[in-house]
Formats: sequence, structure tokens, C-alpha cells
Amino acid sequence: MSDIAVSTGLLDRALRRITTAWREMAAGVGGDDGESVGAQMLACLNARGGEVSARNRAAKLAQTYLGLDEAGRREFLRTMAGFECDAAAVAAAFETLQSAPDAAARAQAQARLRRTLEPPRARLLTQFTTIPDGMKFLVDLRTTLLALGKADPLLAGLEADLRHLLANWFDVGFLELQRIDWSSPATLLERLAGYEAVHEIRSWRDLKNRLDSDRRCYAFFHPRMPHEPLIFVEVALVKGLAGGVQSLLDQKAPAFDTRQSDTAIFYSISNCQKGLAGISFGNFLIKRVVSLLADEFRNLKTFATLSPMPGFRRWLDAKLAEEDANLLSEEESESLRAVAKTDGEATSGAEALAALLRRRGWLRDAATLRAVEPVLLRLGARYLLAESNGRRALDPVAHFHLSNGARVERLNMLGDISDKGFKASATLMVNYLYDPAKIEEYHESYAGEGKRHASTAVRRLARGWA
Amino acid sequence: MSDIAVSTGLLDRALRRITTAWREMAAGVGGDDGESVGAQMLACLNARGGEVSARNRAAKLAQTYLGLDEAGRREFLRTMAGFECDAAAVAAAFETLQSAPDAAARAQAQARLRRTLEPPRARLLTQFTTIPDGMKFLVDLRTTLLALGKADPLLAGLEADLRHLLANWFDVGFLELQRIDWSSPATLLERLAGYEAVHEIRSWRDLKNRLDSDRRCYAFFHPRMPHEPLIFVEVALVKGLAGGVQSLLDQKAPAFDTRQSDTAIFYSISNCQKGLAGISFGNFLIKRVVSLLADEFRNLKTFATLSPMPGFRRWLDAKLAEEDANLLSEEESESLRAVAKTDGEATSGAEALAALLRRRGWLRDAATLRAVEPVLLRLGARYLLAESNGRRALDPVAHFHLSNGARVERLNMLGDISDKGFKASATLMVNYLYDPAKIEEYHESYAGEGKRHASTAVRRLARGWA
Amino acid sequence: MSDIAVSTGLLDRALRRITTAWREMAAGVGGDDGESVGAQMLACLNARGGEVSARNRAAKLAQTYLGLDEAGRREFLRTMAGFECDAAAVAAAFETLQSAPDAAARAQAQARLRRTLEPPRARLLTQFTTIPDGMKFLVDLRTTLLALGKADPLLAGLEADLRHLLANWFDVGFLELQRIDWSSPATLLERLAGYEAVHEIRSWRDLKNRLDSDRRCYAFFHPRMPHEPLIFVEVALVKGLAGGVQSLLDQKAPAFDTRQSDTAIFYSISNCQKGLAGISFGNFLIKRVVSLLADEFRNLKTFATLSPMPGFRRWLDAKLAEEDANLLSEEESESLRAVAKTDGEATSGAEALAALLRRRGWLRDAATLRAVEPVLLRLGARYLLAESNGRRALDPVAHFHLSNGARVERLNMLGDISDKGFKASATLMVNYLYDPAKIEEYHESYAGEGKRHASTAVRRLARGWA
Amino acid sequence: MSDIAVSTGLLDRALRRITTAWREMAAGVGGDDGESVGAQMLACLNARGGEVSARNRAAKLAQTYLGLDEAGRREFLRTMAGFECDAAAVAAAFETLQSAPDAAARAQAQARLRRTLEPPRARLLTQFTTIPDGMKFLVDLRTTLLALGKADPLLAGLEADLRHLLANWFDVGFLELQRIDWSSPATLLERLAGYEAVHEIRSWRDLKNRLDSDRRCYAFFHPRMPHEPLIFVEVALVKGLAGGVQSLLDQKAPAFDTRQSDTAIFYSISNCQKGLAGISFGNFLIKRVVSLLADEFRNLKTFATLSPMPGFRRWLDAKLAEEDANLLSEEESESLRAVAKTDGEATSGAEALAALLRRRGWLRDAATLRAVEPVLLRLGARYLLAESNGRRALDPVAHFHLSNGARVERLNMLGDISDKGFKASATLMVNYLYDPAKIEEYHESYAGEGKRHASTAVRRLARGWA
Repeated sequence: MSDIAVSTGLLDRALRRITTAWREMAAGVGGDDGESVGAQMLACLNARGGEVSARNRAAKLAQTYLGLDEAGRREFLRTMAGFECDAAAVAAAFETLQSAPDAAARAQAQARLRRTLEPPRARLLTQFTTIPDGMKFLVDLRTTLLALGKADPLLAGLEADLRHLLANWFDVGFLELQRIDWSSPATLLERLAGYEAVHEIRSWRDLKNRLDSDRRCYAFFHPRMPHEPLIFVEVALVKGLAGGVQSLLDQKAPAFDTRQSDTAIFYSISNCQKGLAGISFGNFLIKRVVSLLADEFRNLKTFATLSPMPGFRRWLDAKLAEEDANLLSEEESESLRAVAKTDGEATSGAEALAALLRRRGWLRDAATLRAVEPVLLRLGARYLLAESNGRRALDPVAHFHLSNGARVERLNMLGDISDKGFKASATLMVNYLYDPAKIEEYHESYAGEGKRHASTAVRRLARGWA
Repeated sequence: MSDIAVSTGLLDRALRRITTAWREMAAGVGGDDGESVGAQMLACLNARGGEVSARNRAAKLAQTYLGLDEAGRREFLRTMAGFECDAAAVAAAFETLQSAPDAAARAQAQARLRRTLEPPRARLLTQFTTIPDGMKFLVDLRTTLLALGKADPLLAGLEADLRHLLANWFDVGFLELQRIDWSSPATLLERLAGYEAVHEIRSWRDLKNRLDSDRRCYAFFHPRMPHEPLIFVEVALVKGLAGGVQSLLDQKAPAFDTRQSDTAIFYSISNCQKGLAGISFGNFLIKRVVSLLADEFRNLKTFATLSPMPGFRRWLDAKLAEEDANLLSEEESESLRAVAKTDGEATSGAEALAALLRRRGWLRDAATLRAVEPVLLRLGARYLLAESNGRRALDPVAHFHLSNGARVERLNMLGDISDKGFKASATLMVNYLYDPAKIEEYHESYAGEGKRHASTAVRRLARGWA
Repeated sequence: MSDIAVSTGLLDRALRRITTAWREMAAGVGGDDGESVGAQMLACLNARGGEVSARNRAAKLAQTYLGLDEAGRREFLRTMAGFECDAAAVAAAFETLQSAPDAAARAQAQARLRRTLEPPRARLLTQFTTIPDGMKFLVDLRTTLLALGKADPLLAGLEADLRHLLANWFDVGFLELQRIDWSSPATLLERLAGYEAVHEIRSWRDLKNRLDSDRRCYAFFHPRMPHEPLIFVEVALVKGLAGGVQSLLDQKAPAFDTRQSDTAIFYSISNCQKGLAGISFGNFLIKRVVSLLADEFRNLKTFATLSPMPGFRRWLDAKLAEEDANLLSEEESESLRAVAKTDGEATSGAEALAALLRRRGWLRDAATLRAVEPVLLRLGARYLLAESNGRRALDPVAHFHLSNGARVERLNMLGDISDKGFKASATLMVNYLYDPAKIEEYHESYAGEGKRHASTAVRRLARGWA
Repeated sequence: MSDIAVSTGLLDRALRRITTAWREMAAGVGGDDGESVGAQMLACLNARGGEVSARNRAAKLAQTYLGLDEAGRREFLRTMAGFECDAAAVAAAFETLQSAPDAAARAQAQARLRRTLEPPRARLLTQFTTIPDGMKFLVDLRTTLLALGKADPLLAGLEADLRHLLANWFDVGFLELQRIDWSSPATLLERLAGYEAVHEIRSWRDLKNRLDSDRRCYAFFHPRMPHEPLIFVEVALVKGLAGGVQSLLDQKAPAFDTRQSDTAIFYSISNCQKGLAGISFGNFLIKRVVSLLADEFRNLKTFATLSPMPGFRRWLDAKLAEEDANLLSEEESESLRAVAKTDGEATSGAEALAALLRRRGWLRDAATLRAVEPVLLRLGARYLLAESNGRRALDPVAHFHLSNGARVERLNMLGDISDKGFKASATLMVNYLYDPAKIEEYHESYAGEGKRHASTAVRRLARGWA
């Protein structure tokens, strides 16, 4: 118990200094509200043990925050962010650590230094966990901080503290995997539909189709946010690799007889809580679901995604604009020019392709498609396997799946013919294959050496025409 | 994401240094087992992202530990404790912090310093949370570390890290209050009986009596240890303050008609997990239960404990031994000598009292009781209100309840006439009163100024004969 | 056990006779299928104890039925209906009863007669209860039998047996009341929307509005049909009697603050299972819900319905057609002719009213409404309180609520301005008031003497102009 | 609805007659209480629709009953039993049936006759189902009626009606199978221990042993009596047929590794509700549990019981007393006389055996055991396979299992060496084997031709020495 006393003593002194600092700061921003918010926070921190009333104080503070407008919230958060570490105490603790005579003293000094580095604002944040829906409150608070922190270093510090706490609380060991189906509560399904970020859920009928007998949907939940999914995945049980998302989303298609299924297609993974950005569980979700499905359906042999290539057009458009001579082979250029029919306007294959990508009609023209498809598939493979952002794959979805230990299995022209699909990736979609026997190895070599695994066909495509 | 990369880089370097250090250490302790355990731990730390196999590695490590004998476990834990912070990295990070040019840099440097202070062994510990029953494994690990750490500074450091983690995970905001009754699972009830630390549960019949219609029992649970109570309280609904525990534990007594009850007596509070020592929830438990009972039974007016005085006899025996002249009044001494009938042996009242306390028979002798009772009550009150351990009440139970905001309400002679009660407190028991309207105030003044609140009667008793 | 033996003996003989009869019958209808179905049924009945295989046989029989087309099902049911009582055995048992020498013999003979009156087809039906979803199968079977039995006395007998069994199994003592809200499973909500028979549920949004915080929805379920509601009621918590259903169904209206509510309006009660026709639980449902609501919302003072008058226009149109001279007062006729503006076409008030009821526009014309409203309210009151079908109220909804002990409280012009409301009741709706203190008395006097209770205002209206 | 009216009319008339009859009867028994009970019942029956107050009346009636002493209850039940069928109405309905002109009229007349045969007292009984715990009330009521009915034909009739109702409500289709283990509520486990009728459960430790990891316990429950088991079975998972119950009940024996188990031994089946006597579910329970275990443990090859032979000694003692010359072979007689050492007292083998069976000591004497064992095994086999009660096996447990389709597999000397086992069956126990592939065939041939199946060894034993 004696180190608690020490810690309380330290804290008292720290608070005394901070209080002075904060008073000046509060005087700076002036205003009654500012003062009362700061005073509330100080009361939260000063209270030395009345935990029940601490909870009431935290609840009141949360209500104060929720009652504020945008500017008020910003000021509130800045006030909270002002409860930083006591630099002098940190320095003193470091001094003690440096002069520690033996292991025991060193351990104690390290613990003390660690405590001085826990800013009072982190303790303030922690107190919100005790109020009902407090965890959701903190997650949403981080959403706000992420937006505000870009321009405000003080708030960025508070955001970092909150992230540290959330990463601890949302450790995957605490999460619960739940299956979601058409028997789930309507409240949950409604929320899910709102969170779907990959392929918009347009109606209850659309949703019902995604929860049919040939589908599976799983989500992670946290015990302190029991009605809020954190991330969810939608899976279709099919025969053979599915290449196009429209047929999966077709509400009129009958449910597939799952006894015939040999392949599980993960066609949508959505994070639900912006406030948990950077705290990753998608990786776990896929692997846990692969293992559940393998148990339930003994016939499943292939586990793969059907994924978008969100950055493909952005990259391609830039390449086309800079007229990179190595982008297209002569043969390709010629056939593109032939189908683009831009009457002399397009003097290069790149210009012809750019022109085609500005209009959608050619998708329905077999001859054009014949010319465009091989070019786009080749460039798509190159984009996925060769283009980089530092050591990572340029495409963020590719980076996610490669990090998880998947490999690029197949590219699909006309994989997503919606407006969104056309604009983002010229209808290309990609299957990433999760081979349970290889996941670890692939993960390690991508994380270590940046090696991107792919099927022979895709590797050949990426090598291209040269 | 870039700070993760930084952190990974730091970690890599730290691990390289530590690996070398550990190899030497392992060479020191020699032995194949030692090496393989260290190698397993290193593998757990090195793995840069294969979380699923990380879980498998953690599970294997836990099994290795559980398969060891006492000496093996000690060595295992010392090996783990060896994964300390990298002192050089800490120093470098502090340097960076000192020279940080602005708030943003300072925040980042603080975060980095904090990370360097998180020893790899803490990350090792965290990985056990992902395995089934991992949380219970960690709690039990701390039980072992608490025992071993007293003599071993290295293990004391590991214990401190584990405590820090557990305090975070077992924050009261994460706990679930459950009522326990005779409909609860037998597994749980059996466990409860084993954990009862105040008044031993002797049989299923004894247990059933404590869960009768005039009783309530509540426990805190953690979502990651769903079948393990953390702490529980037993309450009797009675009329008027209960002064003796034997009547509460009488299995043959009929259940009291709770519509007549005006008082809730908390007659037993037991912590169940030694590994959570120092992480306190008793305070919350009492207050939450007071609030639940007040809701359920509108007639309840008094919330009080019936508590032991575990240190009374130890203190009194010492006082008697040192022949403190101020301990007893002359009158008291005389009457004690009269009933002790030690035939001139006892030349002082203290000796007479000491002689009586060595034998139990006088409890059943009305005349002796008449002489002894006022003396013991007075000394008991003095012991509770005036004797100190630093700024705290000397009696640990008194300290606990005074810290929670209770006051000393009444002392009860013959409150516990069991062997245990006779030996620990000469049968004295005490009621602490929880007055919802005063809890905060009493808590604050005890925590702040060390003020111990008590009823007028007890205060008068404590003032004594002088 | 000996009477089982007797009964088995009887049954054997009965089956022997029936088998012969059935063979002839089956020969009559010919066909392989007919024979195999009959043989299956016989096997179900003959099996003297292999209950597990009995279950399998019943499951197979159910599957056979479900695989048949309409004509096949009819034949199946006729075959089953052929397993009637053994008339000779009935006669013999009656003989024995008549000559029973004493009470004991009489009791035994009665029991035996009762058993001979249990037709084998009833035992066949009972066997379906053992298969999964067997209860729903039987309920749906009765739906079919109700349709077919009108024209086929043999099937009518089978239907009566099934009704008898269902009435027994669906005794209100076995039903479970459940609240349904927006957290209920989507499967259940979807089913509910399909079963709503009073005010169609048009969309999920419409449904959500009916499950908002100012609404309550309760349904009865049977433990053997856990996912199928039997009957449900929708309630709105409002201030004052609600007179119009459109405002209750307005999806854009904000939820009412239920702390202000003094009235619970039951605005929709729907039976879900046609196969349970004539087995009534609506009565219980309303009373149980009244009691639940009274517990939950202490401010509620009034419990009333907002109900349709489904037979009003049918009755009124007939009256108008027969030019009943006593239908309208002279004054009423005059004002109706004035607003009908049919230019001499309508020579009577009745003709004018009939003309108005053929077009909807006048609802939006204040002057017309002023003329029509008092007439329709008066006639509506007369229709509810004076028109009869035997001893019952002519209007079936009125009969239902009056039977339950409600009284007619208020009529509302423009209560339902939907097409359906205009066509069925010229927009009239009615509030039936459930006064817990009067329910029993009102119920008794309606059930006994046919007395219809109503508020003073409605009674005055019904007395009319004479 | 019209036939309800008819039925109500009939009922009214019936009640009028009965009322008169009952008044006379009540006058006979006199007493205020008698009158008021009868009046209460009449009120229950007369109430024409106020179902909610009907429930209240039923609850009051039940309370009245529970408040009575034994004599009062008997009078209460006689009063209730007095609400018999109306003989004149029965006769009239039969008349109508006889003269029914066609199928439709016949069906209607049959239904009517059936209704007249439903005595008002059955409707009274049914009303108790609506009150909380009403089903348990009725089950317990039948326990009482079974005891009283033996001497009182009027009560026997009421008992028969109640049995008929209960048989309907407790149809196996409505029952729920639940596994019971050490995690089950203590309330349930305590009840279970009280209901165990085969091998007494002596303590919580004994109970825990029976719920260990190598055991299974399953019970049937009814949705209207959710906390009351109806029947339960205890199973041990072992290797090879278990022959002795003491080793199964040994609390100190470690749990068997179920991966090694090839045999499931059903060692105890207990009916819990005396009031459900004659309504059998044991049969279903065994078969459902066999199927569950076969699913859970793929290694199980044998499903058998370890059962007592409760009537063996009774039969054997009678045989020995009557000095049946064919009971023992000369050789057997000689060896029995040799070990009985009764010094000439026992002049026959039967006398020697009788003398041995009067003392227990010989169980521990190897030589005696050697002489006695073959004789007892042979006689045991004969008792099971050849001795009859009508067409049934004389032993009631044998009859139960043979009816269910089991065969006699093995007899075990020293199978139950408790006092109870020694007295009932001279320590013999028997394994009945349930071979899923044969159950139906064996069941049919026992039920049909009385054929008792047994293993070759047991059949050979039973054939004996002749």
C-alpha cells in the first residue's frame, strides 16, 4: 500500500502545479463555462476515493460535453488536454532512475517514472468508463479528436493518450465474436446496414439477402459496448471463386445449396467505429471466421475475398496523364486507339484509354471490352504487386490482406459494375486467397521483406508485355 | 501508422540487446529447459504480427509453466522477468523529451518515453489474455509472484508490471454485479463456499441458510473470468442492529419476514482472488449493494456491518504484557482481580485480565462477564478509535470501513463466541454504519485528516475512565 | 395399467373393423398413392409402443402430405378423416354405461365411452405433435380443413376433432406473453408485419414507428411454436382519447413523452393463425396488457381501443337502398340534399347521402362535412348499440369488445380516412373503453342479457332525433 | 360459433341439475365450509367468460384447498368429484347420435356426445392450469387422489379425469430434455437428490460424483413446470459392461477418461412426480439419451443399463419356502448344504440356501461364494426370462426394459452389495442392452407375443441344469 501513498503524494504535488497552470490557461480563454468545465475536471481528479460520487462527477462531465456546440466541445477538449504530465516530476523520476543502486531500486524507479508519465488527462478519460455507455462515449470522443487533432498538437496529445487506453481495453482477447443473421435484433441489423462501408445496403430486402442461408455474417463486440458491432464481415458460400459482386448482391437470386459449396467468399469487411481507427481486429476476424466456417462446412476448400481496388483508377489516371512511355505496349496502344474511335484526337494509347475511362458505354460493347480487358488486368496486377507506398503495397486493401498473410489470387474484369466500381477501379475486383497453411509464412515475408505473394497467373500478368 | 513503425524499430533494437543479455543469463542458469523457455518467450515477442499463432505460442508457454514444479516455475518467472526495459532506450527517449522544441514534439517524445518504459515482459503477460482462461491464469500467476517477490527484486518488478496491467483490466467499470442465490449454479456456490474468509461455510446446509429468503449475496465478476467471483458480500435483513454472528449463522433459525426488516447487516465480505490483492473493489461493492437493497426493500433504514476486530487481542495482549499503568482504572483492576480468582498470583488488574483471556470458561459465568464486559468494550473502543498505524486505524477492518465512509456504531460483547472470535477479539464484534447521506463526507475527512467517525456512545466509551 | 390393456383391446378391434372399412374405401378411390397414404396412417395407429419410430412415421406422413398438390392433400385428408369412431363400440360402451350398477362402474363406463368416442384420426393428429414444427403443421392443417370442410362433412368432422385438440393445447394457461420491440429478431418482426390485419404495415419504417418509445406491442406465443405469434396488439401511449388512426401511423411524428401519457390506445389487434380460428385469446391479451401497462406507467388512467366499424357501410348502404323512412329526420334530409348538390337527382335525404358516400371529395369540404358528420355519428351509434345479429351486436368488432366487458365510449368522424376506412365505415372509428373496475360487470350483463354499455354521449346519439 | 352457444345451453341445463344435486349433497355433509367450497366451485363453472376473474377464482379455490387438513381436503375433493356428467344429457346425446341421418349429422352428434361426457369437474381441474404453479398443483392433487381413490369410487372417477387431462398435457411432444450437471442450479440439484429412487444420493459429494466428467444426467421438463424434473436418468461412460454399482458410486474413484469409453451404462432412472404415475416417458428418455450420447461420443458402441432386480428375493424366498423339488439340481443342493454348515438342520439345498440368504457374512467367504454364485445366477436368469405376471415378465424393471425393446444381456453377482441390494436381490444386478438396430423389433415381439430377448449366455443360464 505504501507506493500508493507515494503515488498519491506525487499526484497531489503534480495537481497543485497543474492547477496553477490551468488557472492561468483558463484565465487566458476566459469565460464562465471554461472555468466551470476545468473546475469539474479538477474535482474529478482531486477526489481521493469517493468512487461512487466520482462516477456521478464523470457522468455530469460527459453531459456537459454532450450539451456543448462544436466550438464548446473543442474548448472542453483543450481544457482536458491541458492536464498534461508534470515535466518536473518526470525529470525528477528519471534522475532517481539514473542513480538507482540496484535492480530493486531500478524497478521501483521505473515504475515511478511510468506513473509520472501518465498524464492526469488519461485518468480523466478512464473515469468515463464507469458511466453507462461510457465506452461508446470515449470511442466517439476519439472520432472527434482525430478530426480536431490534425490541426492542434495539444489535442493530438490527448488523442494519443485515448488511443493508448482504447488499444488496451479493446485488446482482441476481450472481444466476442457473434454470428449475425436474420434472427438478430432489428436494432442491430439497422445499425449494421448503416455501418456497411464497402457495398452499400440499400434496403431491408438487400440486407436479408446478405443473411440468407448461403451467407454468413460475423462481428466482433466488446463487453462494455454490447450493442455496437466493432467490425463485421459478410461471407458468401459458393462453388468456385466468385468474380463479380453484383451476382452476390442480387436479391432475386435463390440461395445456394451450401452442401455444394467449396468456397467461402469474404465480400465485405467494414469497420464500424471511426473512434477505433488504428486499433486493428480485421485480421483476427478473418482468421476466426475461416476457422468457424471450416468447422461448420467440411466441404469448404477455398477461403478468399472478393475485394475492391480503391486506389487503382487514381494511380492509373495519374500514370495516363504523365504519358509514361512504358505503361502500354505498342500493340496495346494500337488496339485501344482502334476501339476508342476518337477520330485522331487520341494520338497515344494512353489518351485512348483515358478517353474510354471517361465514358461507361464501352462496358457493353464486346469488341471494346476485348481490347480493354487484357490491358486493365495487366495494369491492375502491376498496380497490386509492383506499386509501393514506402515498403507497403500502394493499394490499402492489398496492404491489409497481404499483411494478414493472404496472396493475390485472381483479378476480375467487370467485378463491380456499379458507378462506384467503375470510378474507383474501372470495374476490376480482386480475390485474395487465405490458405490456412500459408498464412503465417506469407504474413512474415510480407511484414519482413515486403514480399507480396500472388498466384502464378497474376505474377505473370504483372510481369507484363516487356 | 508511422509511429507504429518507429515503435517496431525501437522494439527490434531493444529485443536485439535483450536477446544478448538473456542469452548470457540463460547460459548462467544453464539447462536445456531454461533455454527452451527463454526461446519460447523470445518467439512470442519477436513474432511481428501473426496474432493467431501468437495465441498458440502463448497457450504453449502457459502449458509449459503449468507443467513445471515449484523450482521450475520460479526459474520460468525469473526468465520472464529478465525481459526488462532497455535502459539505454529509456535514456535516449528522455534525452529527446528534454530537447523537444514544442508541445507537439513534447507529446510525441513523452509517448515514446512511455513506450520504452513498457518492458517486453509486460507484452508477454498481455499475450496470455488471448488464451481461454488466460485472465485467471494471470491472476493466479500474480498470487505466485506475490509470494516469491518478497525475496526476489527481479520477480517483484514483474509482479509490479502484472499488477499495473490487472489494475487496468479490472477497473471497476468493467465489473458485473450479480446476485447469488440458491438457484445459482452449484459450481459457483461450491467455489463461493471455498472463498468465504470471514465466517467459514461448513456445509451445503450452512450455505443454503446464507442464501435464504431473508439474506442477499452479491458478487462482482469480470467478463473475462465469468465463472470466478472476485469479491462477495453476505447480507442479512433483520430488525434492529444485529450484534452476534452466531444467531445469523444458525441454520435452524427460521427465515425472517423481510417485510418487517428495517436493517441490512453486511456480515461477511470476502475477496476471492489473492492475485488481485491491492486492486480494491470492496468499496464499490458495498455501495452498489446498499443502493440495490434500498431499491428492493423500501422499509430499510439502516445499512451496517457486523465485523470482526481481527487485531484486538494481539494489541491488547501486548498492552497487558507491558503493564501499561494507564490501561485500566483502579476500579477496573480491582473487579478483575476479584473475578479472576488467581489467589494472589495476579497482583495487577492487567495480570488478572490476561489470566482470564487465557481460559474461556468465564464467558459462561455471569459475575465474571459483568466485570469483564465494560473493560473490554472500553478498550475495544479505544483500540478502534485511538490506536494507529501511521495515519490509519490500527485495525485493518476498521481502516477499510472508515476509508469507505462508514462510522463505528456499536461494539458487541459476545458478538463472536467461536474459537476464532475468542482468540482474535475476546468475542467482540463491531457494527460499522453506512449512512448514504454521510458516506462522502466521512470518507473525505478520514482520508484527508484521519478523522474517525463514531456514534456518541462509542466515542464516550473510547474516552474512558480518565 | 389394466385399463390400458382394455383400451388396447378395444382399439385393436376397432382398428380391425376400420381397416376393413378403409380398404373398401381406398379401393373406391383407387390409386397407389391413396393406398400407401392409408397404409402409412394405419401403421401409425397400429404401432403399439415404438414411440421413437412412431415419431419417424409421423414425420414421414407429414412430408408425404406436404409433397402433395391440392387435390392430393384433399384425398389425404379424406383418407385420414375416414378413421372415425367405431359406432358399434360406442353403442356397446353406452349399453354398459346404462346398466352400470353403481358409481364406480358408472365412472369406469363413462371413461370407456369417452375413449370409444375418441376417433383414431384424433390419435393420428396427436402424433404430429412429436415432430419438429409439428404444432405449426397442425395449425396450418386446420386452415386447410376450415376451407375444405365447408363442402365436405367428412372433413368437417376431422376439422372438429382437430379444433378440439388445439383448443386443449392452446389453453390460455399455456401461452406466454412477450413484448415485441425494435430489438426483437428481424424474423419475428417480418412475420408480424405480414400478420397485421387491421392497419397494413407498409415498410420497415412504418413498423419501427409502431415500436417506438411511445408504443407497446405484445403477443401471445405457445411453447411448441416459439417463433410464431398467435395474436398481437399494438398500443399507443397518448394524452386523451385518440380519435384518428392516421396521426398514430404518421411515421414522421416524434415519439410522445410517455411521462405525459394518461391514456393507452389499443389501435390494432390481429390474430396471426387462421388455423386457430374460434380459439380465442384476444380477450386475455387485452386484459393482461392493461395490467402490464398499469404497472409500468402509473399515470395511465384510461385504457381504450381505437377500432374500426367494419360492417357499418354495408349496413348503411342497405338501409339507404331500402329507403327506410325512419332512417333520417326531415332536417337531416334537407341539409344532406343541400350539400349533395345533385341537382334534383336526389329526391330524398337517403339518396343524397348515398350519392355523397359514392365520392370522397366532400371529406375535404367543410360545409359538407358539417352536414354529414352529425348524421353519420348518429347512425353509427345506432348501428353499434341497436342493430343485432341474434342477441349479438351486428358489428363483429363491437361484439368482440362488448363480450370482453368494454363499453362504447366515443365515435370519431374522420377516424380512418384511408380508402379502406372510407369504404368500410365512411371514416368512422370508435373507442371502446376498458374500465378495469367494470369489465366483469359489463361482460356479464352483455353475455347474459345482451346489454350493450356505452357512454352517455353515445347513448344519447343512438337515441337519435325521434 | 353456433355450436359454442349450443354447448353453453347444454352446460347451463346440466349445471342447473347438478346444482340441485350438489345442494342436497352439501346439505348432507353440512357445515359452512363444505357449502362455501361447493359455492366457489359452482362460481368457477358458472362464470361465462370473465376469464381473468376466473383465474382469480381458481387461485382462491386452490388456496382454500391448500389451507385444509387431510379430512378437509378429502371433503373438498368429494365435493369436486360430485360435479359429474349429466347422465340424462349423455343419454339424450346418444339418442341423437343413433338417429343421425348422415355423416355430417353423425359427426356433430358424436362431438356433442363427447361434450356431454366431459364432466364439469374436468373443467374445474382445467381452470387450475391458469394459475402460477397450477400444473404442479394438479400433479400433486393427483398424488392425493391416487391414495384416496383406492377406497372411494367417487374420487377414483375424479382421479381418472385428472389422469386423462394430464396425459394430454404431458404428451411427450411437449416435454423438454435438459442436461443436468454440476453447473445446474443448486435448487434443481437438491430436488434431484430428493427424487433419486434407485440408489440414494447421500450427500452433495455423492451428487457431484454422479455429475462428473465421465457421467451424464438428463431429465425431462414440462414448460408449465419449468423447475420440476419429471424423470431423470444417470449414465456412466465406461469401458466394457459395468457389473457392480458400488464402483460407479465410489466418490473417491477418479473420473474416467471418456475418450476411452466404449459403453454407456444407464445406472439409475427415477420418476420424480408420483402424480404422473401411469403417464410414461421413461421409454422416450432412454432413447433420446442414447441418441444424444451417440452423437457426442463417437466411440460408444454399447448402450446398456445396470439395473436392480427388485422382486427376485421375494420370488425366490417363496420358491424356497414351498420346497419346489425342481428348483435346485442335486449337485447344487449338495454344494449348498456343504457351505451352509447348518449341522444337519438344513436337510435340503433349499433350506441351505434360505439359511445363507438370512445372513450376509458368506459374501466375503470365497468358498461359499463359489457354491452360491452359479445357483443364484441360474435362478436369476430363470426369474427374469421365465416367470410371468400375466403375459408380462414378473420383475417390473425387466418388464419396463423389455417393453422398451431392450434385451437381458448379463447377470452380475455382487452387483449391489448394499443392504438394499442384499435384501432385494441377493446382490444380483442385471444389464439390459439397448441395441438401436434391434429396439423396434424386440419391442414389437415382446409387446405382441410376449417374447423376452436375451443374450445366448443368459438364455443358456435360464434353461438351467435340466
